[in-house]
Amino acid sequence: MHASKYHINTLKEAPAEAEVKSHQLMTRAGMIRKAAGGIYTYMPLGLRILRKIENIVREEMDKAGAIELLMPVVQPAELWVESGRWEQYGAELLRIKDRHQRDFVLQPTSEEVITDIARNEIHSWRQLPLNFYHIQTKFRDERRPRFGLMRGREFTMKDAYSFDRDEASAQSSYDAMYDAYMRIFTRLGLTFRAVAADTGSIGGSRSHEFQVIADTGEDLIVYNPDTQYAANIELAEAACLIPQRGAATDALNKTSTPDAPKCELVAQQLGKPLSDTVKSIVLATDNPDDPAQATIWLLLLRGDHDLNEVKTSKLEGFENGYRFATEAEILDSFGCVPGYLGPINTIKPVTIIADRTVANMSNFICGANTEGFHYTGVNWGRDLPEAKVADLRNVVAGDPANDGGQLAIQRGIEVGHVFFLGDKYSKALNATFLETDGKPALLQMGCYGIGISRIAAAAIEQCHDEKGIIWPKSIAPFELVICPMGWHKSETVRNTAETLYQELKAQGVEVMLDDRDVRPGIMFADWELIGVPLRITIGDRGLKDGIVEIQARRQEAADKVAVADALQHALNLLNSL
Amino acid sequence: MHASKYHINTLKEAPAEAEVKSHQLMTRAGMIRKAAGGIYTYMPLGLRILRKIENIVREEMDKAGAIELLMPVVQPAELWVESGRWEQYGAELLRIKDRHQRDFVLQPTSEEVITDIARNEIHSWRQLPLNFYHIQTKFRDERRPRFGLMRGREFTMKDAYSFDRDEASAQSSYDAMYDAYMRIFTRLGLTFRAVAADTGSIGGSRSHEFQVIADTGEDLIVYNPDTQYAANIELAEAACLIPQRGAATDALNKTSTPDAPKCELVAQQLGKPLSDTVKSIVLATDNPDDPAQATIWLLLLRGDHDLNEVKTSKLEGFENGYRFATEAEILDSFGCVPGYLGPINTIKPVTIIADRTVANMSNFICGANTEGFHYTGVNWGRDLPEAKVADLRNVVAGDPANDGGQLAIQRGIEVGHVFFLGDKYSKALNATFLETDGKPALLQMGCYGIGISRIAAAAIEQCHDEKGIIWPKSIAPFELVICPMGWHKSETVRNTAETLYQELKAQGVEVMLDDRDVRPGIMFADWELIGVPLRITIGDRGLKDGIVEIQARRQEAADKVAVADALQHALNLLNSL
Repeated sequence: MHASKYHINTLKEAPAEAEVKSHQLMTRAGMIRKAAGGIYTYMPLGLRILRKIENIVREEMDKAGAIELLMPVVQPAELWVESGRWEQYGAELLRIKDRHQRDFVLQPTSEEVITDIARNEIHSWRQLPLNFYHIQTKFRDERRPRFGLMRGREFTMKDAYSFDRDEASAQSSYDAMYDAYMRIFTRLGLTFRAVAADTGSIGGSRSHEFQVIADTGEDLIVYNPDTQYAANIELAEAACLIPQRGAATDALNKTSTPDAPKCELVAQQLGKPLSDTVKSIVLATDNPDDPAQATIWLLLLRGDHDLNEVKTSKLEGFENGYRFATEAEILDSFGCVPGYLGPINTIKPVTIIADRTVANMSNFICGANTEGFHYTGVNWGRDLPEAKVADLRNVVAGDPANDGGQLAIQRGIEVGHVFFLGDKYSKALNATFLETDGKPALLQMGCYGIGISRIAAAAIEQCHDEKGIIWPKSIAPFELVICPMGWHKSETVRNTAETLYQELKAQGVEVMLDDRDVRPGIMFADWELIGVPLRITIGDRGLKDGIVEIQARRQEAADKVAVADALQHALNLLNSL
Repeated sequence: MHASKYHINTLKEAPAEAEVKSHQLMTRAGMIRKAAGGIYTYMPLGLRILRKIENIVREEMDKAGAIELLMPVVQPAELWVESGRWEQYGAELLRIKDRHQRDFVLQPTSEEVITDIARNEIHSWRQLPLNFYHIQTKFRDERRPRFGLMRGREFTMKDAYSFDRDEASAQSSYDAMYDAYMRIFTRLGLTFRAVAADTGSIGGSRSHEFQVIADTGEDLIVYNPDTQYAANIELAEAACLIPQRGAATDALNKTSTPDAPKCELVAQQLGKPLSDTVKSIVLATDNPDDPAQATIWLLLLRGDHDLNEVKTSKLEGFENGYRFATEAEILDSFGCVPGYLGPINTIKPVTIIADRTVANMSNFICGANTEGFHYTGVNWGRDLPEAKVADLRNVVAGDPANDGGQLAIQRGIEVGHVFFLGDKYSKALNATFLETDGKPALLQMGCYGIGISRIAAAAIEQCHDEKGIIWPKSIAPFELVICPMGWHKSETVRNTAETLYQELKAQGVEVMLDDRDVRPGIMFADWELIGVPLRITIGDRGLKDGIVEIQARRQEAADKVAVADALQHALNLLNSL
């Protein structure tokens, strides 16, 4: 490709609304242009990146035995009603009406349509296992679409769906996809981690996320640096930090703690470590049969720990959801304003659940249900009955790992997710097949997503510098750019550049020759911003000595190479990237 | 590919609603499955066809210098308001609201978005010419989606948009796309014709359609078998069939023609040829400033000719559209019910426009504006004043061609359309660039569409037989299928089939090996239905004599070929297809 026949249009400034690096850099490099909030045109350079990611994903999916098809963007509401998601899915599901006022959705995923296809196409156990996938435009009507391709409304996703006879076979399909994902993200040149994850709104019994490691990631990953263990913090089990409860040595004391509605302030006032305090979190679960009657819960966490909302949502009694209690409800049950609440002497009985660590604390500090007062020297059994115990908190760095050593935490960007669905959708849509005994059985399903467009953004978040993007070679829009200094003036430069261009092309290198009439500084800045992995600079000054300059985007300085060696040197460097 | 690892699911019966062959056959062959009216899932076989068409289109677009990008499916209404099409486009434009009640459309084409991109990206004449294209999902909310992929609601289209400095350069861009389209449809293996066409709702000053020739096509193509001339009947100029008006030899006579409200009946009653009669068509054009005041027009055509509505819409005075006059309007102007209307003695003055042929008729027959009566022996000048003359009719087969010889008519399916837009959209969106003199000038545009999914249907309409589809090799889902008779029983068959399969794959042939445990009759019927161009049958009976059978889908009988020659014979046959 010659740049003069292409469309290169870089910008000096990123739009003010671009908060994250990938959004800023993709816009400045001319890879995306905004059409509306969260909706972008992929400009030529951006589309090349997207297609390269798609192709790697497609090749590995095909190798893993998945079969590509293409389900529509616009899907009939009937199927979503059948699965229950028409009701369950929130405002992110864009619902539309056609000219006859019939309901449709713009697909965010395709569980319903593929299960409908499966129930029509799969008749016999002889056809199983089957795994269908497509790479298709998705739409999620985010309330505040920001962050460019990181969280767009219209985006490209690969989603695959496996169908099996039984759970063991479905587990094999799941494992095959897990392995394929490992190969995909490795080939994409990303530093990533597969982590155990919550199944969320998709449902199913187990799942793994594939997280690109980046400081700007929204997800927190808990991992053991010494083992294979890694889990999303939402799911990561938090150990009890106190192996054995200490003796009740201190007396219970109602202590004045004015203007200390937070553990940090209490600890400060009392001159105690924060880890001696216990925080009280009051939740409510509504009674679907009697909306006026909510159940009030008191969750206890150590003062330096945070509530894990996913774990909370899985507590017994929380099946229909939970919320934070209102101030009125708190006053009604505790007779006290928030900030000084505790488990001792509540006005009405509340169900108390203590985090594992709290359950082993002794001589601790908690609210006294009187404004401006806390209890010190609190002990289980003596001052209050033993409570229900559960894992309620987020892991913190340094926590002991179940498999030895200490847990660490890093940030990640979720780019893939595999789910073991079981019969969630096949049951709802009655998708069965005939077993060997001639009787119908429910299909066992898995689903497997990869955010194609998000990968582009995640790669940038993971690797960029002050000059611009640094692409992994596998997804760079071009592998190599030739920058001739004085293309329009020097025939020698022109001939050398064109010859090298043709030689590199013949070797299968995706090469761009920048024959634009722009100053060297602008040319270099453009390609550093765009992030092409390798650059060859050819100028009259070097050519006098028979020299061209070859520089990897990651290199500090260029290699000076004899013209005759340039091709081989460039190929070697490319291979090493 | 081995069939047991793929998904082959043919149906004996087509759905009752499938009216056209392509819809029936693609459904029966398991290439498409309906998700909703006019919305389909492309099953694995169908997607392979789609991708092959896309790739040929993409390669030729790239060769022609067009640059691929990807505009979104969901587009903001603001741009459509700016272009005027938010108002002009009818119910086929699917309008949607997001969660914030902002208006969007599902794109039927992308003139607005690309012009918005152009006005932001193109600053200088130095950047021109430019041609951007994308291959993307489109949506048109057809009132009665029928005919499968022939006229779906969600479909895949390639649309390109060229930007030029001036009309001459824009014409070059247009010509380059015209040439690329000729190459594309030739490579697709289709019998087609490029025809001059009307610009319709897209607008612009000239256009060509690319029509796949098929008896089931919706379009009528007028062409000169002896020359390059071809035009859609909407546009094809119809000559005056009477070189010189004959003398007024007959007397004007008001003749009783009871129960003869049509020219055919009048001619029959009077024992005259239909070509002696003139039919009266009464139209109305509304006055936008005074809706109560419509202008009434009388159009005269020879009794055996049909009105051409596109030509009519271009008549002077018809700029704001026209309609057929109501019976009340007809009574008011003619004092007579429809069926006996004519140009002589109207009650109110009406503007009369005669077709070119009518204008040269003499001694003709027309309605007498009295129920049950026609005039015979009518002559221009003597019995009524000379009228305005225009080309009002559809060409009929045998009409003289402008470039000599006689015109013929055939049916076609529109699969591509190129438009010379001029500044229609650049003016509406103020898309300018700076000319050499530093002054802004409007971009000159062209737009160029290809119906990717429609091509699959058109290819089937053009070529099928009672057994199923006959694909052109270039877009067949597989080029060749190996059918082993007794794969599960005979090791010799298995080894021979697998060896040939590997050899063909190594030669780059897209080959399917049908290792399913099905009877030969079913296997053959499946692949004939699916339309794979070449089949190799391998069985123990033939192998005893060292023979396999090779048969092209179009061939009546198989060639018996020695096993050792099978590879070369198959390659030769494939090359000849």
